[in-house]
Amino acid sequence: MALAIGIAALVSVVALVWAAYANWYVARRDRGTKRMQEIQGYIRDGATAFMIEEAKHMSIVILIIGILLWILFYWEVAVAFWIGAIFSMAAGFIGMNAATLANAPTTQAARRSVREALKVAFSGGSVMGMGVAGLAIGGLVIVIALFHKEFDPATVHIQTKYLFGIKGAGVNFIKGALLVSAYSAGASLVALFDRVGGGIYTKAADMAADIVGKVEAHIPEDDPRNPATIADNVGDNVGDVGGLGADLLESFIGAIISVMVMFMYIFVGQHNPGISDLVAKLGFPSGIEPGQYWWVLLLPLLIVAAGTFSSLLAVLYVRYSKGEDPQKTLMNGLIMAAVLTGVFTLIICWLTPVNFNPFFCVLVGLAAGVAIGRLSEYYTSYKYKPTRELSEMNQAGPGVGVAGGLAVGMLSTFWPVLVLAAATALTYYIGGLLGVAFAAAGMLSFVGMNVSIDSYGPVADNAGGIATMAELPPDVRERTDGLDAVGNTTAAIGKGFAIGSAAFAALGLIASYLWSAIGSANQVLPPQVPLVGQIAPSLSPTASWIDVGPWVLVGLMVGAMLPYVFSAILIRGVTRTADVLVLEIRRQFRENPKILEGKETADYRRCISITASGALRSMTLPAVIAVGTPLFVGLVFGRYALAGVLFGGLLSAIQLAIYCANAGGAMDNAKKYIEIGHFGGSGSEAHAASVVGDTVGDPLKDTVGPSLDILIKLMSVISLVFASLFPVSPIFM
Amino acid sequence: MALAIGIAALVSVVALVWAAYANWYVARRDRGTKRMQEIQGYIRDGATAFMIEEAKHMSIVILIIGILLWILFYWEVAVAFWIGAIFSMAAGFIGMNAATLANAPTTQAARRSVREALKVAFSGGSVMGMGVAGLAIGGLVIVIALFHKEFDPATVHIQTKYLFGIKGAGVNFIKGALLVSAYSAGASLVALFDRVGGGIYTKAADMAADIVGKVEAHIPEDDPRNPATIADNVGDNVGDVGGLGADLLESFIGAIISVMVMFMYIFVGQHNPGISDLVAKLGFPSGIEPGQYWWVLLLPLLIVAAGTFSSLLAVLYVRYSKGEDPQKTLMNGLIMAAVLTGVFTLIICWLTPVNFNPFFCVLVGLAAGVAIGRLSEYYTSYKYKPTRELSEMNQAGPGVGVAGGLAVGMLSTFWPVLVLAAATALTYYIGGLLGVAFAAAGMLSFVGMNVSIDSYGPVADNAGGIATMAELPPDVRERTDGLDAVGNTTAAIGKGFAIGSAAFAALGLIASYLWSAIGSANQVLPPQVPLVGQIAPSLSPTASWIDVGPWVLVGLMVGAMLPYVFSAILIRGVTRTADVLVLEIRRQFRENPKILEGKETADYRRCISITASGALRSMTLPAVIAVGTPLFVGLVFGRYALAGVLFGGLLSAIQLAIYCANAGGAMDNAKKYIEIGHFGGSGSEAHAASVVGDTVGDPLKDTVGPSLDILIKLMSVISLVFASLFPVSPIFM
Repeated sequence: MALAIGIAALVSVVALVWAAYANWYVARRDRGTKRMQEIQGYIRDGATAFMIEEAKHMSIVILIIGILLWILFYWEVAVAFWIGAIFSMAAGFIGMNAATLANAPTTQAARRSVREALKVAFSGGSVMGMGVAGLAIGGLVIVIALFHKEFDPATVHIQTKYLFGIKGAGVNFIKGALLVSAYSAGASLVALFDRVGGGIYTKAADMAADIVGKVEAHIPEDDPRNPATIADNVGDNVGDVGGLGADLLESFIGAIISVMVMFMYIFVGQHNPGISDLVAKLGFPSGIEPGQYWWVLLLPLLIVAAGTFSSLLAVLYVRYSKGEDPQKTLMNGLIMAAVLTGVFTLIICWLTPVNFNPFFCVLVGLAAGVAIGRLSEYYTSYKYKPTRELSEMNQAGPGVGVAGGLAVGMLSTFWPVLVLAAATALTYYIGGLLGVAFAAAGMLSFVGMNVSIDSYGPVADNAGGIATMAELPPDVRERTDGLDAVGNTTAAIGKGFAIGSAAFAALGLIASYLWSAIGSANQVLPPQVPLVGQIAPSLSPTASWIDVGPWVLVGLMVGAMLPYVFSAILIRGVTRTADVLVLEIRRQFRENPKILEGKETADYRRCISITASGALRSMTLPAVIAVGTPLFVGLVFGRYALAGVLFGGLLSAIQLAIYCANAGGAMDNAKKYIEIGHFGGSGSEAHAASVVGDTVGDPLKDTVGPSLDILIKLMSVISLVFASLFPVSPIFM
Repeated sequence: MALAIGIAALVSVVALVWAAYANWYVARRDRGTKRMQEIQGYIRDGATAFMIEEAKHMSIVILIIGILLWILFYWEVAVAFWIGAIFSMAAGFIGMNAATLANAPTTQAARRSVREALKVAFSGGSVMGMGVAGLAIGGLVIVIALFHKEFDPATVHIQTKYLFGIKGAGVNFIKGALLVSAYSAGASLVALFDRVGGGIYTKAADMAADIVGKVEAHIPEDDPRNPATIADNVGDNVGDVGGLGADLLESFIGAIISVMVMFMYIFVGQHNPGISDLVAKLGFPSGIEPGQYWWVLLLPLLIVAAGTFSSLLAVLYVRYSKGEDPQKTLMNGLIMAAVLTGVFTLIICWLTPVNFNPFFCVLVGLAAGVAIGRLSEYYTSYKYKPTRELSEMNQAGPGVGVAGGLAVGMLSTFWPVLVLAAATALTYYIGGLLGVAFAAAGMLSFVGMNVSIDSYGPVADNAGGIATMAELPPDVRERTDGLDAVGNTTAAIGKGFAIGSAAFAALGLIASYLWSAIGSANQVLPPQVPLVGQIAPSLSPTASWIDVGPWVLVGLMVGAMLPYVFSAILIRGVTRTADVLVLEIRRQFRENPKILEGKETADYRRCISITASGALRSMTLPAVIAVGTPLFVGLVFGRYALAGVLFGGLLSAIQLAIYCANAGGAMDNAKKYIEIGHFGGSGSEAHAASVVGDTVGDPLKDTVGPSLDILIKLMSVISLVFASLFPVSPIFM
């Protein structure tokens, strides 16, 4: 145990040291002209103020849930939850901080060369990349080290605690599993707030700035005369950087702990008939000895530590590469991280008592992630047919363009879902549901490199904004635009990993929920692998179906509906905030005509504060739904209904997330394809139509899509934490 | 048996006699001026030609599938399938025929009074209403009467026929169940073709006419100068009338046969432990005697016969009512049909050997249908907040308007799904899964009245088109518009019934599939009520989970994706056909400027033929997906995977169908609200934005939404028919 934990801790520290170094490197760079520094200041202040406000808002919720956990379970559970929440907040904050430090220096570097600008921007991105990986691993190491007794093979067992005499609800759990679940729940909750708040912020500002700026006043993007310009740039940092960081931290942790939780339940029940098969699949035909236990428990941690170390090497490669083609350099870095992770995983499996099945699952996960990413790129990049055809359709007007864009999004679910299904079937055969969870962990293991690439894009984007606002020569903007575009392909692959790993991790979390909820409800562990709906009879062959009744079915229906309602609320948050902002921008132009003439400065602060308060107001309800639904359903309708809700939600969220992300992506790039001169180019009817499509697609792509992934994981992990409190059948029966 | 069949046959004949009378009544009415007759001729010829072409296209598929059924099973199965297909085609054709006969007479009547126009239009609608009910019941009566031995309690049993030595696939079935399933499959397949073909036709013509007419040439709707005007009117008849008729016939039959199939399996296995509970729920604690068998088997047929008779009374009431308020008259008619159906069902339950549980289930179904319809109305009518707010949002441009419209659609899934879930839980407790199927049958029982109301709208719409094109005084158009609007509220309730009953009927069909596929696979009938995924262990407690593996799970994922891909293909069919049509209209205006001056007649025929060939080309792939997917999945991946696909598809289709239907409805009515003078009225920026929303929403509402309901039922019923051929586990394992 000590060795494995030590390795993980070391990797965590090394990752954080790099993050600190890169941050320092970015901070001491030349920030350019006075005007550039002034603009950077605005953006930095706006983003910092928003994230502090956001943190205040969520702190109350986090405090309350923690206290609840303390009362209902033990103080250790609350502490684990808070560690997860705080580390998640820190990840978002660190990323945002580095990004807002790096933007002006990137602009300044771009005045000299693309190569230098890449170095600065990528360094800024790598702060969050390595920060996310280091914090996630570090937090988990702390939880396990602090409460190591609860994970010990000698003491790990099903504990019982009766509470409130809730009908049928003997509180049964493995305390260690509860602790890591609570840690994950804390991280997920913060991630939801960050993603939703940041996503609404960035898209509302973007939408409003475009509507009044581009469409009504006919001024270009990032024009300093537009009062919403700064808010738009703030949004890139709080949404695309801060939100993304917390999001991937959450996915990363979810993937790790779903393996750990499942494994603990397997270990406790390993001599039951169905479970012994599973244990054999990992290479233990005669059961797991206490001496082997730690190696299996900490296996996912070791795999992600290896992935993080590989990411660091890849980051160093990109950072110090002398290559002239940034696109190639980034892709090489990504491939390098993936290959190294694979090699390290192979070595880990060889050195530890498990067989090579976890390695094969990781491999399948990696392949599936790359495939889904490539497929997303096919549907959304204007290098390929779907988006090009969509550009052409825009000639027939915005109605046809938007309908066509939605159709591309719907169609784009086909191959990714088939890939997911095939990967699920394959990993299931290799390692059972635990194999599926290993695939998720593998997919996310080099999150350090993925996030570095993903968050370097917004830095370049911001740098371009500063170049335009500070009225630097146009070739600077061209360089930063080039850099921004370069990241797109690699970022698309990152998105594939996000969607694929979310599905797998959620499956793992739901399976863990079933094992703890249904297994403990029956006072025995499941003798067979329980899939949703297959749970009851597999647990107690004598139980009459009347016990379960229609609740799994009804839960599935309601669960499949939730992602739609959740998405609707997010879109409304964006459109309502944008609406207020549009009125404000129009007011400024009307009341002070000198703004449009460029003679007076627009009131940026007012736009920033309107956007911030709109985003903060809109982020509460989604969080309440995500946390409240599993609690309500579980407490009132019982464990089986909740199983249905989780699984229905997962099924529906996968499709809706891919549809929204790719519809938005295709409409965005259809516009760009027209802008580079096709079908009449900028200013044509087709272009006007495509701008409408872009506006519709923006909240779908950047607010709804990524939030759905978190929604489903947060619901699953909340269920996992509170599972033992829920009655078996509905309380009214 | 003879009595029940006789009653059903009598009702069927009476309904068809009314349809013939109403058709004759409409046909001999005054068709107005020469110009009106000419326009009517164009529409009639276009619609007839399209439906004949459509029939030719599908005949090949129907022939092939029938022959396949003949070879694989028995000639009787093929005959039942063909009867279903032919009766479904006839329903669509009769409805279209009556509607295209009634349009000009309605215009002519509207020159005198609203009351008279209502009478003519409603008579035209009632031809299809009563025709659908009469044909559906009549076809089923023929199948049962022709092959009555297969339904006899003395001979009904599980039959076995081995074929091709397919692994694990002993062909086990109840022949009677197979016959009615094949009948239903024939009707569903034709309905899918009619709905998809008609839906693409009507929306492509509508879109193209609007884009070039309203947006580019600034001429009003139905302007005779627009070359696509006639095609647009043809579309109303082949889509909104012909497609709707086949659709509801399909739903109606599906609801009836799902009860019958389930009951036959229950009867055969009634002494098995789980099933005896179910039988007791129907009032037979000690099992069903052969003398009671027929009454239960034919119970759904009696209920729908009662509903049809009630519908006829309601139709007579509306037709001969002297009431001045058409809105009130229609609503009274609908309530009358519902109440009478309830009363008759109560009497039927009292007179037959069952207890009152089927009656309660029918009641719950009726209440749920009304509730869902009312909820749809809330989200889509401009009398209520959501659509009014959406109108307001359009002031911020089309991007915000469309995004807002999509959000309304997503949000609108909330209450309807909760109602469905509650109704499922309730009917399940009353009568098990059979109770859920009874609810579907109850909901659809007065389909005669529902379809009469639904198809009277398009007749009034067409009459308005003729009034404009024949340049009659504007007050005629006002009267027909008023009539069209009147039907909307009642039609919204009809839509609620369509969605709710589709979900319930599909559940019933899937459950029937499970019973026949999984029950017979295990050579025993299910001892417990099998829900999807809960099937395997409930059937053979000794079966290891490895037998099923991840296939239910993987099937669920893939099934949930299908409705998205299917929808995408439909939207593409519409946008691509509209695209070609737009180019053609522009060409006509460009090459012959006299058309726009009103001095020369546009080339209507060319537009009609372009639309028709586009629709015919686009309807093949959706049908192939709907039929091919269950066959492919079943044959390659086995029965469990297919169960997952069906259930995942149902879950996903419910949400997507409600979302599409209500998003489209809200965007349509947001436009209308602006047109009656709000937020600047017609010609304002907000109006232009709302027109874009309407264009996006049209294919969602009228092509995608209704087709999804059929997709899921067709897939289920195809699975039900071919179930016995599928291997238990994947063929490659």
